[in-house]
Amino acid sequence: MTRLSKEILTQTIKKRPEISHKGTFGRTVLIGGNSQYGGAIIMSAEACVKSGAGLTTVITAAKNHSALHARLPEAMVVSFEETAVIDSVLETADVVLIGPGLGLDQTALKLLQKILKNQQAQQWLVIDGSAISLFSEYQLALNFPEQTVFTPHQAEWARLSGLSINKQSEKNNCAKQADLGAKIVLKSYRTTLYDQAAAYYQNPLGNPGMATGGMGDTLAGMITGFLAQFEKTIDTLAAAVYLHSLIGDDLAKTNYVVLPTSISAALPRYLKKYASERK
Amino acid sequence: MTRLSKEILTQTIKKRPEISHKGTFGRTVLIGGNSQYGGAIIMSAEACVKSGAGLTTVITAAKNHSALHARLPEAMVVSFEETAVIDSVLETADVVLIGPGLGLDQTALKLLQKILKNQQAQQWLVIDGSAISLFSEYQLALNFPEQTVFTPHQAEWARLSGLSINKQSEKNNCAKQADLGAKIVLKSYRTTLYDQAAAYYQNPLGNPGMATGGMGDTLAGMITGFLAQFEKTIDTLAAAVYLHSLIGDDLAKTNYVVLPTSISAALPRYLKKYASERK
Amino acid sequence: MTRLSKEILTQTIKKRPEISHKGTFGRTVLIGGNSQYGGAIIMSAEACVKSGAGLTTVITAAKNHSALHARLPEAMVVSFEETAVIDSVLETADVVLIGPGLGLDQTALKLLQKILKNQQAQQWLVIDGSAISLFSEYQLALNFPEQTVFTPHQAEWARLSGLSINKQSEKNNCAKQADLGAKIVLKSYRTTLYDQAAAYYQNPLGNPGMATGGMGDTLAGMITGFLAQFEKTIDTLAAAVYLHSLIGDDLAKTNYVVLPTSISAALPRYLKKYASERK
Amino acid sequence: MTRLSKEILTQTIKKRPEISHKGTFGRTVLIGGNSQYGGAIIMSAEACVKSGAGLTTVITAAKNHSALHARLPEAMVVSFEETAVIDSVLETADVVLIGPGLGLDQTALKLLQKILKNQQAQQWLVIDGSAISLFSEYQLALNFPEQTVFTPHQAEWARLSGLSINKQSEKNNCAKQADLGAKIVLKSYRTTLYDQAAAYYQNPLGNPGMATGGMGDTLAGMITGFLAQFEKTIDTLAAAVYLHSLIGDDLAKTNYVVLPTSISAALPRYLKKYASERK
Repeated sequence: MTRLSKEILTQTIKKRPEISHKGTFGRTVLIGGNSQYGGAIIMSAEACVKSGAGLTTVITAAKNHSALHARLPEAMVVSFEETAVIDSVLETADVVLIGPGLGLDQTALKLLQKILKNQQAQQWLVIDGSAISLFSEYQLALNFPEQTVFTPHQAEWARLSGLSINKQSEKNNCAKQADLGAKIVLKSYRTTLYDQAAAYYQNPLGNPGMATGGMGDTLAGMITGFLAQFEKTIDTLAAAVYLHSLIGDDLAKTNYVVLPTSISAALPRYLKKYASERK
Repeated sequence: MTRLSKEILTQTIKKRPEISHKGTFGRTVLIGGNSQYGGAIIMSAEACVKSGAGLTTVITAAKNHSALHARLPEAMVVSFEETAVIDSVLETADVVLIGPGLGLDQTALKLLQKILKNQQAQQWLVIDGSAISLFSEYQLALNFPEQTVFTPHQAEWARLSGLSINKQSEKNNCAKQADLGAKIVLKSYRTTLYDQAAAYYQNPLGNPGMATGGMGDTLAGMITGFLAQFEKTIDTLAAAVYLHSLIGDDLAKTNYVVLPTSISAALPRYLKKYASERK
Repeated sequence: MTRLSKEILTQTIKKRPEISHKGTFGRTVLIGGNSQYGGAIIMSAEACVKSGAGLTTVITAAKNHSALHARLPEAMVVSFEETAVIDSVLETADVVLIGPGLGLDQTALKLLQKILKNQQAQQWLVIDGSAISLFSEYQLALNFPEQTVFTPHQAEWARLSGLSINKQSEKNNCAKQADLGAKIVLKSYRTTLYDQAAAYYQNPLGNPGMATGGMGDTLAGMITGFLAQFEKTIDTLAAAVYLHSLIGDDLAKTNYVVLPTSISAALPRYLKKYASERK
Repeated sequence: MTRLSKEILTQTIKKRPEISHKGTFGRTVLIGGNSQYGGAIIMSAEACVKSGAGLTTVITAAKNHSALHARLPEAMVVSFEETAVIDSVLETADVVLIGPGLGLDQTALKLLQKILKNQQAQQWLVIDGSAISLFSEYQLALNFPEQTVFTPHQAEWARLSGLSINKQSEKNNCAKQADLGAKIVLKSYRTTLYDQAAAYYQNPLGNPGMATGGMGDTLAGMITGFLAQFEKTIDTLAAAVYLHSLIGDDLAKTNYVVLPTSISAALPRYLKKYASERK
């Protein structure tokens, strides 16, 4: 397993091509935020837009639209009920994130089933939070596992892999990754990444000031934004994980608790720095 | 009675443990904000999240959800009517705050009665604002007084203790504290704290620029966030009171009026400073 | 007529008394903001709270509550329809502002009639914007003219006084002020103030960068906040007018247009500065 | 074709006249923002207000009002359904923008038809985004083409002109401009401007960090604000285009992605700078 370092950033974050347009940087669709957890998908959207994704549409409960726009007019919004519009935005999406604050009810389950069923060749899928729990509970299946990322914390990984937390060894995790076929970002004290039956990376960064509600939603949004723009590989996931913690560590030097939204606010500057250091 | 000093901060605010997760820093539930006073519980929530609590859920009138999320997507929201969800979030709460902007109607009374009835062993309860008035008027009872904090101003303490303001001497307050069994944060020009029939602390700080709507709601949120993370003692309450005034005094050096939300905004930096000075 | 200078600030803005509470700094009620002009009363409220008023309640169309709280949780909110709550907050108000964004419909008229009818001894009333037009059109009357302030621009003053703009000479304005009995803040290129049949003050400050929607709403909020705290005299109105322009002039040094909300944001610092310079 | 330079700014951005009022700087009406794309018109409004327009009214879906006011209380709001109010604000408008986030449904079409039909002598019209597509699809007509601006990107210009993207040569564009009679701001990697059958300007600035959702909505708002204040000529359109890119280039020095709202936030300072450099 490779210990991540700043090189993952300079290797991944590319200079934006001079002749380009919004589509060049990807169309993302973020699905989550029920009545109780609307803040989660708002935080994901902030991370995605501020990572540099070209176009970001958020599918969330109608009650969350106003707060999202008050913070982030750059995003577009659709309600869970607007089936035709949902189908339309999904059709042209490059990367779809489902899960932050989505909850576990029938609306959530049906959305997840629709997303899984309609995943297209070339379309990437990031499955986070409660969508992982639903996927596990209902034993759902992936159409394109190699274009799918799961971002579980340890309890969610236990549900997804069947491995209780104390059995989540590198070897066992690799075996389960091979069964699933999808890429795994296993969030913990030191987040690890798995792909192609190998434990690729371990993140050496992060700090306890980041242990606060919304931090995972922010990471999921960053991963989505990174996949929309950069090579669609495990390295790009690793770069998102590493930068999320690197910013968090910098902020923790002067902040007892690191607000997730403060990480997103810092993204444009940090991305610029590492894009500039690219050889 | 001990005059508080900065030592209460360095003694109370601990370094966050390296290996930890959101749960390590407590699950808080904040209840308040009716149709008229929604801003109160928003200000409590900002103080609680920015104090470093791990997870913060706000139970408030549905009309307040959007403004809360526009300011603080880090919090989760539940409406007063969502009985099943309320029961669920209360069950796992470490600290419950009830009162800021709650009002005095039947909805408020029933919520307070539910909270009091269902308080669990290990679960702390902070009773503030109109919830103190309701508690007094309906002569409600505490299940776990030793795990309960009242944060009255002098008029609310008169209702709760039966002591008119001119009889609120240290001795009389101690006697009433002993009757109630709960910890008392008696807010006034120089806030005092009572526990175990003793007048423990007096806060020497604070300034008239802090005399503006929402300052008490912010303190209640800080107390909740502190109890979620630090030792559940009168000292921790005292640290919240002292830091609230210390930040207020610093801000008043350049501001004629100190906005409550500006105190919350400064919390992550001040907490970091005193955590770092801890021996 | 006296040309205003910075002395009006050091004479008016007093040090806040050490032993005080929210009530010391006044209870204000701001009425305005219909479906179209909700931003107006939001801007008034920001100016009032940031001027240092102790408690601020905003009576506005329900659709404006969420945006108000998203910007300013420090304020309390009531809808136009909540008659009982309106009566209750008016009863204890020290200063009432009516007009910013209120509009001209029956709801507006009835609110204005209620306010005029129920004005109490000791209670001050500021009449701004469309409330001036309604007052003129329906030939309404004042219970306590000496405790009432009108803040017309020239066209509104024409309606109120019957003086067409080219007849608004100092002499004619004085005569009309004597008829009305109320204090007049006549907004124009160089705002003038009238009281007791005399032209008291002329404001030498202000700049064309301040000619943008919301500037008058912000001034009305400052006047309300100042009356809540300082001597209830023409001097205090003059101090509000002067400081509003002074901040505007400072901001215009680096801004082509001065956003009204940027004036309110600067208030706590400017007020502190002049309170400190008071002899 | 002239390559734009900073001179277009110092020639266009005039010092605000000392004796002036809100009306001096124009009444603007911005129409757009349906259920899905509310952020678009919010971003246009921020750009328009911060460009210095005197009064800005936004006609948008009711669900967008709260978020707009939470960000920008300086604007006024009207819903798509409020026909009488719409007619009233249109009657006194100096510049009308239609299109950002408007969508393509019947509500959008009817609004566009109303605007086109009622355009008055002296009233300028900016047609952007989906309104261009509707104009093309339904072969609508202009009453005052010489007072009309289209701001298409290349695909929208293809629909409007009938020229496929590879046929959009300078010569062909000029011919089509002559047919339409309106001024054309053709957005692309290097935006060009056409008027009176001539290719007037090419913008040499801009960067790929600006390729993100909302950038065009922000430009449309700037164009509207500029037309409200400055000479109503192709030069003023060019100045808006150039400043939009100039700010974007400055922000891109430290930001990987340039948020459209960060351009609007910088407008008052940049406009001041170039107004001051005017000879």
